[in-house]
Amino acid sequence: MAVAGAPRRAAESWATMAQRNPAVGVLDTLLRGVGQVMFQNNPLTGLLFLVGIFVNSLKFGGAALLGLAASTLAAYLLGADRALIRNGLFGFNGVLVGIGLAFFLEFDVLLAVYIIVGAAVSTIVMMALINLLSPWDMPALTAPFVLTAWLLLFAVYQFAFLTPTELIAPLAPDPATVVQTELRELATGAGAVGLTAANLAHGFFRGVGEVMFQDNLLTGVIFLIAILVNSRISAAFAALGSAVALLTALALGGDGVAIYHGLYGFNAVLCAIALGGLFFVLTWKSALYALLAAVFSVAAFAAIAVLLSPIGMPALTAPFVLTTWLFLWPKAGFRALEPVALADVTTAESIRAGYRVRAAGPSATSEPGEAT
Amino acid sequence: MAVAGAPRRAAESWATMAQRNPAVGVLDTLLRGVGQVMFQNNPLTGLLFLVGIFVNSLKFGGAALLGLAASTLAAYLLGADRALIRNGLFGFNGVLVGIGLAFFLEFDVLLAVYIIVGAAVSTIVMMALINLLSPWDMPALTAPFVLTAWLLLFAVYQFAFLTPTELIAPLAPDPATVVQTELRELATGAGAVGLTAANLAHGFFRGVGEVMFQDNLLTGVIFLIAILVNSRISAAFAALGSAVALLTALALGGDGVAIYHGLYGFNAVLCAIALGGLFFVLTWKSALYALLAAVFSVAAFAAIAVLLSPIGMPALTAPFVLTTWLFLWPKAGFRALEPVALADVTTAESIRAGYRVRAAGPSATSEPGEAT
Amino acid sequence: MAVAGAPRRAAESWATMAQRNPAVGVLDTLLRGVGQVMFQNNPLTGLLFLVGIFVNSLKFGGAALLGLAASTLAAYLLGADRALIRNGLFGFNGVLVGIGLAFFLEFDVLLAVYIIVGAAVSTIVMMALINLLSPWDMPALTAPFVLTAWLLLFAVYQFAFLTPTELIAPLAPDPATVVQTELRELATGAGAVGLTAANLAHGFFRGVGEVMFQDNLLTGVIFLIAILVNSRISAAFAALGSAVALLTALALGGDGVAIYHGLYGFNAVLCAIALGGLFFVLTWKSALYALLAAVFSVAAFAAIAVLLSPIGMPALTAPFVLTTWLFLWPKAGFRALEPVALADVTTAESIRAGYRVRAAGPSATSEPGEAT
Repeated sequence: MAVAGAPRRAAESWATMAQRNPAVGVLDTLLRGVGQVMFQNNPLTGLLFLVGIFVNSLKFGGAALLGLAASTLAAYLLGADRALIRNGLFGFNGVLVGIGLAFFLEFDVLLAVYIIVGAAVSTIVMMALINLLSPWDMPALTAPFVLTAWLLLFAVYQFAFLTPTELIAPLAPDPATVVQTELRELATGAGAVGLTAANLAHGFFRGVGEVMFQDNLLTGVIFLIAILVNSRISAAFAALGSAVALLTALALGGDGVAIYHGLYGFNAVLCAIALGGLFFVLTWKSALYALLAAVFSVAAFAAIAVLLSPIGMPALTAPFVLTTWLFLWPKAGFRALEPVALADVTTAESIRAGYRVRAAGPSATSEPGEAT
Repeated sequence: MAVAGAPRRAAESWATMAQRNPAVGVLDTLLRGVGQVMFQNNPLTGLLFLVGIFVNSLKFGGAALLGLAASTLAAYLLGADRALIRNGLFGFNGVLVGIGLAFFLEFDVLLAVYIIVGAAVSTIVMMALINLLSPWDMPALTAPFVLTAWLLLFAVYQFAFLTPTELIAPLAPDPATVVQTELRELATGAGAVGLTAANLAHGFFRGVGEVMFQDNLLTGVIFLIAILVNSRISAAFAALGSAVALLTALALGGDGVAIYHGLYGFNAVLCAIALGGLFFVLTWKSALYALLAAVFSVAAFAAIAVLLSPIGMPALTAPFVLTTWLFLWPKAGFRALEPVALADVTTAESIRAGYRVRAAGPSATSEPGEAT
Repeated sequence: MAVAGAPRRAAESWATMAQRNPAVGVLDTLLRGVGQVMFQNNPLTGLLFLVGIFVNSLKFGGAALLGLAASTLAAYLLGADRALIRNGLFGFNGVLVGIGLAFFLEFDVLLAVYIIVGAAVSTIVMMALINLLSPWDMPALTAPFVLTAWLLLFAVYQFAFLTPTELIAPLAPDPATVVQTELRELATGAGAVGLTAANLAHGFFRGVGEVMFQDNLLTGVIFLIAILVNSRISAAFAALGSAVALLTALALGGDGVAIYHGLYGFNAVLCAIALGGLFFVLTWKSALYALLAAVFSVAAFAAIAVLLSPIGMPALTAPFVLTTWLFLWPKAGFRALEPVALADVTTAESIRAGYRVRAAGPSATSEPGEAT
């Protein structure tokens, strides 16, 4: 963790408590699960993420907790590896399944059951993908959430007792449709229109908030602070990802309302965090590579949204998963990039520090020049 | 095989004849191919499956035989492994391609050629998937059928000389559509309506019959008996899968006509057989796990049906393949479950017996307590 | 290379120049990149391909060069393996991304930027697929182009500053639509109608031209000559693939206008070249197998076209990629076929010669009779 002095000691005493006291251990595990939604294996980050969600919506906060508990409990009951569980790897998909289903379906008792089953299944899919991807040492990212939530959401048309919210609206794509490019809050009605500082700030921060479906500027600010608590590099790339996506969407003429609400941003935020120092060692080259991925994720988001538009279903974080897999699978195939083994993925700071030590060491086999 | 006494001796003398007499050997191979549609490597089960199909429809019986012969012959001509052929692994996808194409396309000479080509290609796809999945020791299931039949069916709109049946009906999904939840035989018209014993029996048995597109109560009964001939555990899970799917679909408010005709059941039947004692050793935990898969397959079926509804195409057994892959890929990643190597998949009974012997043996490395 | 005498000496002196002179080396690399669109690692073939494109359209020629330069440059900058770059493996997807985007989107400055980004990303996707497929020693084929171009094309509906050409036209599939089977140039208007020699010639040659989106008889002729320069076997299979697809589409009652313009042919051309002597050693059995793949690709093309019709998007070469993967993944699983390791894929002629030497050698383990 990129902290020092008093915060560092607080973090260490929390870690000690989490090891000794089972109740604190469970709490620690759950909070790390929330933090892992954005690759931050840090309970304080997770706690602040929850604060950010609850600030925006009690319902989504509750759904997040329900999914988190169900997916983590399923991992315990099925006997998944304890170290993986403790790192929150069976929590983050449950959080997203919980919020995602509550976002697109009306809340009632049946939906609560649906979320519990879905979150438990996301744990099974997570383990499936861990095994499936292990020959390449590739991460599952949020694919378990996407797959599970897609199946549960697509099904909604067929079941009378599940009710979609008005966000589920099928639409046949039509090349003749004119895209409204003016940046604004609502398609109809008042409010400042165009490239104002406020509108850009909304697009920028909501892009971070939308990673967990939170269409709220303040939530975006809290999320950035939450990441900053754990890693300055990850916080910087989260911000860069959102900014780059905003600019790319504006340059291509994306829908101004969608941009305002951060819909082009959240996949780019995740791509930028993942590729900006976590799965590749941070260098100038890997930083540019991560930003290229953020740019590409804007097209990928639009593409998957279009593909699903005839059935009116959301892209979720599939653009992030697809883009990051495509950009990460080259691994050591590009000499300009230094891939990080999954077991070594901690924080961008410590990965970079470890790499510098190895590169400078007497038995270094990689070229030190690459690291700059 | 879970038989004893006279039936056992009959089975053994048939096996001896099949080895000595090439004609009996071919017949044995073909019948096992039919049995493998539900994982039953047993010629008598295969024969009873054929009886069940012919009881419902001569046309589908003929199409099944045509596909079976073409896919098995292709495996011989291409030089596939003889042991795999003898176990019927190149027959079951051909059976399903044959019935599936005859179910959704009008029958004529061109369709017969189409079935032959499709069944032969299903053998190629089977071998492709065997190689593709071998790093994880994962089974291809009916994916060769699904992939091949999807490509051949989707194409039908583009070809004047192939005619879809009225079952091919594109429909744009619409959240405002009201799902008719009352259990009944026909959307329009007479007959008992609601949760009557007869309606539930139809849903239950047709669910088993629909595994091979047979919308017929009697066929479902014969199929269950056919499985019972080979394995009581598999028969029990086939029944449990159909029942669990029926209840899940009712609980979610599925279309009453679809439930009556077993459309929510057939994927669950296959999931329950596969996970209930075949690919995981049967324990209380794996039994519950298999039933969770059956529950999830109900949503997966609805989801894939919705996804394909704009082009009016059927889900086939894709929900089964997807759900079973997701639930099986965790393999040894969950300590609560004991995966079975593909080479050891025989009957649920002998797998369980073998596991108990190993667990009790002096060199046992797994925990005996897990098996109960 | 299948040349002798003076041409052989010319080829050798070119190869020497390409090694010594960096400028010639770059030119050689770029031309091989064009040749690799149809698996021909030969700069003269690449040059003739470019001639064929420019004969049809300056715009597409320019787009091809732009994509070629961007994808190859990206490979250099990212530090991909130099030998792979020199063999043109990071050029062909860029060529196709360039033409493909220019074919379906109106050309302007923003599109040029879009092509550059897309071509660069195709290099990343190529390296991703090389790693992904390496456990099976399977080729990426044109999958990087298909994936990248699909994402960039699907997105077009969402961006005001990108304009689709009239080729992007969503259409809900309808079983009641009557397919017009008469072979003719235009759906409306004059010109010879039916199975005339001229119409068949158009369908045959345009099928070859359409591999690179060139709807032009002369371009198809030039492409065939270009392949012939490098390999008689590949040229023969390109021709056979186009002819077989033409006949299959006619037999199934495909749209006469689509057949005239070679739309059923281009995927079959690529399947036939790939499987006809390159990835399997050429024998009578593998030749028939390659032609079966060509037949199947006709259905696969129609299927993928239908699947994408609600969003009005093109199948590109996905039918080729899917069919060839399905037919190649069996590898050594079929004794009737002799797979070629990726590292040994050169020309069909030299592969066959090398196989004959091995088969005839004293330490031969395969049966010589198989090779005839």
